[in-house]
Amino acid sequence: MTVTSPRVGTIYGVGLGPGDPELMSVRADRLVRSARHVAYFRKQGRKGHALRCAENLLPPDATHIDMVYPVTTEIPFGDARYTAQLSQFYAACTARLRAVVTTGADVVVLCEGDPFFYGSFMHLYTRLVPDTPVNVTPAITGMSGAWTAIGMPMTWGDDVMTVVMATLPQDELSHHIAKTDALVVMKIGRNFPKVRQALVAAGKHDAAWLVTYATLPEQTVTPVSEIEDDTADVPYFSIVIVPGQGRRP
Amino acid sequence: MTVTSPRVGTIYGVGLGPGDPELMSVRADRLVRSARHVAYFRKQGRKGHALRCAENLLPPDATHIDMVYPVTTEIPFGDARYTAQLSQFYAACTARLRAVVTTGADVVVLCEGDPFFYGSFMHLYTRLVPDTPVNVTPAITGMSGAWTAIGMPMTWGDDVMTVVMATLPQDELSHHIAKTDALVVMKIGRNFPKVRQALVAAGKHDAAWLVTYATLPEQTVTPVSEIEDDTADVPYFSIVIVPGQGRRP
Repeated sequence: MTVTSPRVGTIYGVGLGPGDPELMSVRADRLVRSARHVAYFRKQGRKGHALRCAENLLPPDATHIDMVYPVTTEIPFGDARYTAQLSQFYAACTARLRAVVTTGADVVVLCEGDPFFYGSFMHLYTRLVPDTPVNVTPAITGMSGAWTAIGMPMTWGDDVMTVVMATLPQDELSHHIAKTDALVVMKIGRNFPKVRQALVAAGKHDAAWLVTYATLPEQTVTPVSEIEDDTADVPYFSIVIVPGQGRRP
Repeated sequence: MTVTSPRVGTIYGVGLGPGDPELMSVRADRLVRSARHVAYFRKQGRKGHALRCAENLLPPDATHIDMVYPVTTEIPFGDARYTAQLSQFYAACTARLRAVVTTGADVVVLCEGDPFFYGSFMHLYTRLVPDTPVNVTPAITGMSGAWTAIGMPMTWGDDVMTVVMATLPQDELSHHIAKTDALVVMKIGRNFPKVRQALVAAGKHDAAWLVTYATLPEQTVTPVSEIEDDTADVPYFSIVIVPGQGRRP
């Protein structure tokens, strides 16, 4: 009798792009449509952006592994409890994915945007990659979706482009905004008033655009200077863009 | 007798992504496969990266509009002759595209990477958009292809990411490299020795990777510190990456 060890499956981290399913890559589209096991992050009580983006493409009989965040913004980032809870959570998610691939099956992990660009999947990836086959499909970033929505080319010639998170302190934001040609600010949400002040301090308030829900039917594109109410409800996944103005013949 | 003015066609700026045709978006794939008129930039005597990436998908009877650069690197960027020649060239390209759309036909312009991210198409776009229907499809950037190739997540938590061109002066490069968490340097080519010096000056030489031909069969991924020969022939479209090391639970 020959004992063959079972084939170990692969975990596919599949970038879904900015939201419009037509902007998924041909490879991502194929992987999602043929998924037998599909995993995704979501918040408690929500379906999750990733699933919403891909659900019309998934086989109806695919097994769902939903990974529900234990905390999101209730505990501040720096807090040790936040780190401990999330670390435990990612370890548990990893164990669930491993359990599937050891049976020989593959798992498709749905990732908003590009998996390696500020993505939650990265927390699973670093835990899995030492001993489990992982395959990553890059994707169109949310910021590409946003600058395309504005209809202005983003970077010309020798332009420097800087990407910053609105969660940074205001003086750090201002510093980076002043030193760059083309700017992307992500994770806006309740940080919008701070971002506006940083743009003003850096002399770029009048050149900035706020894009919400880029590439989705509910997409909005607004010059920041035309947003009068600083307390306006700005979604967390909004993006502020200042296009570059570099060399062009 | 009723005279109806003919429908004006649309110019589609279609991002092809980093090179692997499977990484084109579903929309780009569809637009390329159904193109009746296809336009692309190329260098004298070369087929051009854009055409090479898409040629197996194009209908065999599509009309080709090839836009051959009058100069590339023979004249320095700052030179007035360079600017004048390129300006004339883009105006001529624009006229050729207009001539097609005024007959009512659409044109698909093949764009390497993402059309609005350091793309040649932007020079046509700004000239066309005031009076001609133009539609832009974003794409996976070359840099996403490059960081995925390295197999290390690019940006974590509050990481700042900066994109710089290797054509900048060395002290400017060093400054930007020192001030960022995650780094992308594009347009490497003969600037490689300068980029290396800037990385050394900013204390990031040992964390940097050189990626050539990301996502293509001939892709290479090499730690910069392992490249011994500074005069090695590094392709212009190589990318140097320093992944971010930010907050992670």
